[in-house]
Amino acid sequence: MPEFLSLVTPEEALQQLFTRIRPEIKSEKIATTDALNRITAEDIISPQDLPDFRRSTVDGYAVMAKDTHGASESLPAYLKLVGEVLMGKRAPITLASSQCVLIHTGGMLPEGADAVVMLEDTQALDSGEIEIYRPTASGENLIEIGEDVSAGEVVVSRGTRLRPAEIGGLMALGITTLKAVRPPLLALISSGDEVIPPDQTPTPGQVRDVNSYTLASLIQKLGGEAVHYGIIPDSRNAMRKALSRALGECDHVIVTAGSSASARDLTAEIMNELGSPGVLVHGLHIKPGKPTILALAGNQVMIGLPGNPVSALVIAQVLVKPILEHYLGIERRRPHPAIEAELTLNVSSQAGREDWLPVKLVEHDGGKLLAEPVFGKSNLIFILARADGLVRIPPPVTGLEAGSLVSVRLLD
Amino acid sequence: MPEFLSLVTPEEALQQLFTRIRPEIKSEKIATTDALNRITAEDIISPQDLPDFRRSTVDGYAVMAKDTHGASESLPAYLKLVGEVLMGKRAPITLASSQCVLIHTGGMLPEGADAVVMLEDTQALDSGEIEIYRPTASGENLIEIGEDVSAGEVVVSRGTRLRPAEIGGLMALGITTLKAVRPPLLALISSGDEVIPPDQTPTPGQVRDVNSYTLASLIQKLGGEAVHYGIIPDSRNAMRKALSRALGECDHVIVTAGSSASARDLTAEIMNELGSPGVLVHGLHIKPGKPTILALAGNQVMIGLPGNPVSALVIAQVLVKPILEHYLGIERRRPHPAIEAELTLNVSSQAGREDWLPVKLVEHDGGKLLAEPVFGKSNLIFILARADGLVRIPPPVTGLEAGSLVSVRLLD
Repeated sequence: MPEFLSLVTPEEALQQLFTRIRPEIKSEKIATTDALNRITAEDIISPQDLPDFRRSTVDGYAVMAKDTHGASESLPAYLKLVGEVLMGKRAPITLASSQCVLIHTGGMLPEGADAVVMLEDTQALDSGEIEIYRPTASGENLIEIGEDVSAGEVVVSRGTRLRPAEIGGLMALGITTLKAVRPPLLALISSGDEVIPPDQTPTPGQVRDVNSYTLASLIQKLGGEAVHYGIIPDSRNAMRKALSRALGECDHVIVTAGSSASARDLTAEIMNELGSPGVLVHGLHIKPGKPTILALAGNQVMIGLPGNPVSALVIAQVLVKPILEHYLGIERRRPHPAIEAELTLNVSSQAGREDWLPVKLVEHDGGKLLAEPVFGKSNLIFILARADGLVRIPPPVTGLEAGSLVSVRLLD
Repeated sequence: MPEFLSLVTPEEALQQLFTRIRPEIKSEKIATTDALNRITAEDIISPQDLPDFRRSTVDGYAVMAKDTHGASESLPAYLKLVGEVLMGKRAPITLASSQCVLIHTGGMLPEGADAVVMLEDTQALDSGEIEIYRPTASGENLIEIGEDVSAGEVVVSRGTRLRPAEIGGLMALGITTLKAVRPPLLALISSGDEVIPPDQTPTPGQVRDVNSYTLASLIQKLGGEAVHYGIIPDSRNAMRKALSRALGECDHVIVTAGSSASARDLTAEIMNELGSPGVLVHGLHIKPGKPTILALAGNQVMIGLPGNPVSALVIAQVLVKPILEHYLGIERRRPHPAIEAELTLNVSSQAGREDWLPVKLVEHDGGKLLAEPVFGKSNLIFILARADGLVRIPPPVTGLEAGSLVSVRLLD
């Protein structure tokens, strides 16, 4: 498929890919304390009820609710104080009618008690009796066994990216290890006779490799593992060798193609040779990032990104991210957060093309948030460093007016 | 200051703190490849122009723009092809009038050339001449020296959290190491006679520690470093010893207090004894999370969080996060991303109190996003694991109506 003969939108490209692949999720056992941001490889089932005893939610007196019925400030109920529940201990006695036990927040209810009266609704008398000023209902001010989680319940479903809330919840259940998705290995190949490693000093005409590092950082952030294959010259042999080795050693391959059209065509040719069905998409109807290649070698994805660092990173966000998330087995997908802001300038776009406009967010007097387009030739490396996020201009739209409200997708 | 005598909002609490402290930012030198998510400790200044040579942005012919003036399809300009610029090499010749040189995207312009004509606007003749069908202006299709970044320019300012875009930009400039803020050490002390480590099996009345792990995960995510001090019984001596040791070894201390009011008062008393000015805030006008303590020992913050895991994590998001970011020296603060969604139920709130309502986001037929409140007693550990985010109900508001649009702040 020669370049740009049939451009597709990113959404169409993803659809073409996702209908053809069947991700095989590999898992590994890890400590829950190391699981932040990892993806669960299986449903996690609670081995127990939580709580597994009835807990008080207030400081007060454990009672039989019926003993407090009708109690008021003018006509209190009187209960005999027969003990105290110590924190972390089983209640020392079984409650009988007209008795109460001092209990603290989180304490275990004694047998026989079915409610807790709050301390502020009581008064302790010298006689050892407690005056109760308010009636309480059965079940009040306590958590029942299994009210939080029942034994056998799925507490975290497969394909969930773990946040602090889940980590803590699993620890509450004593689940100190879990099966997480093994991070897919993404090979990164940079190409271009002009590209040199960042720790070298370029001679005239040379530039330092940028894409290997933006992509590796993004992949790390998303939960994949980047494997560097270095910088390959613009030669058929070198590219074929590198791509072939990377396919053998990694799950997927990303090539940032040389900048010229011929270098990109070469990449596509080699992808067609090395894998079947080969190239699915050669050219996206998007700006920036048109010269993007999407190919398959069986279940392994090969992605050819534009050499231009801004284009490469935009496509990484728009295309590589959902592909990686697919292979990470993310099933519980939370919406991508965005910020509403007012566009400061008119922006035009070509009908049928999807544009991603870099913007900087600026707080206006009065707290209104403005989205200022970051202009400049799209080849300027620092455009995205100067931007907070991207505004998507969908294919049918031919432009956005200054003053209109746009949704800014923050850059990862 | 006894508990709850004067409740303040989280915003007021932060103000009280921030007017009293002067964070001392400690820095360390790290590799740029390890700097994702780290905070810059100083302005980073470019040592060079970027690009440091004039680069073509297209495949085409480097020309003197004046040689193409008036060129059209019917009346082309004819230029003599005198060479090719190889990628990564200095142009082999100095261009004279009526000459052109083949150049590729990213190639270095020859001396004498001041524009590039795109390949598609030309035709190569057998004679070795190139027909040019469109006029080009000086500076067209190239990037000038320093157009991206000038030598001496601040490319990343102090207090910026580094994203993939900045990492790549720094590599383009050969900046392979940088000074990052040393992560503040936050001591985590859990207290409560009923609390046991997660790898132990509770006997009746005992519960496993949750807060140490939710908080450590959140601190890790935000760029701090959590130091575990284990679980302390509800005793004055044990708490005083642990807090004192933590103040000596760490930058700041977070105590998740025992659940009862007396345990919380004990924590506040000890914070007053150990540091000056001591307790600033004892009780927040917030739900959940009212029993929060904020104290200072000189420049070291001591935070007492409620033992209830949901309250602790909400306060961690609302209060601990901005405090940590303050000590991380974050100056370029990007807005907190949020999702607009439609609330599914009426929710009431008390005037003067700030409420944070856990919600689950559900996509309705037609793509509309719904925010479903996650109800349940606020002591249920899994409430936040079941939620996508929090809706803030500001102090003056007494409730939100079903159907109203709310801004959901995603949980970190």
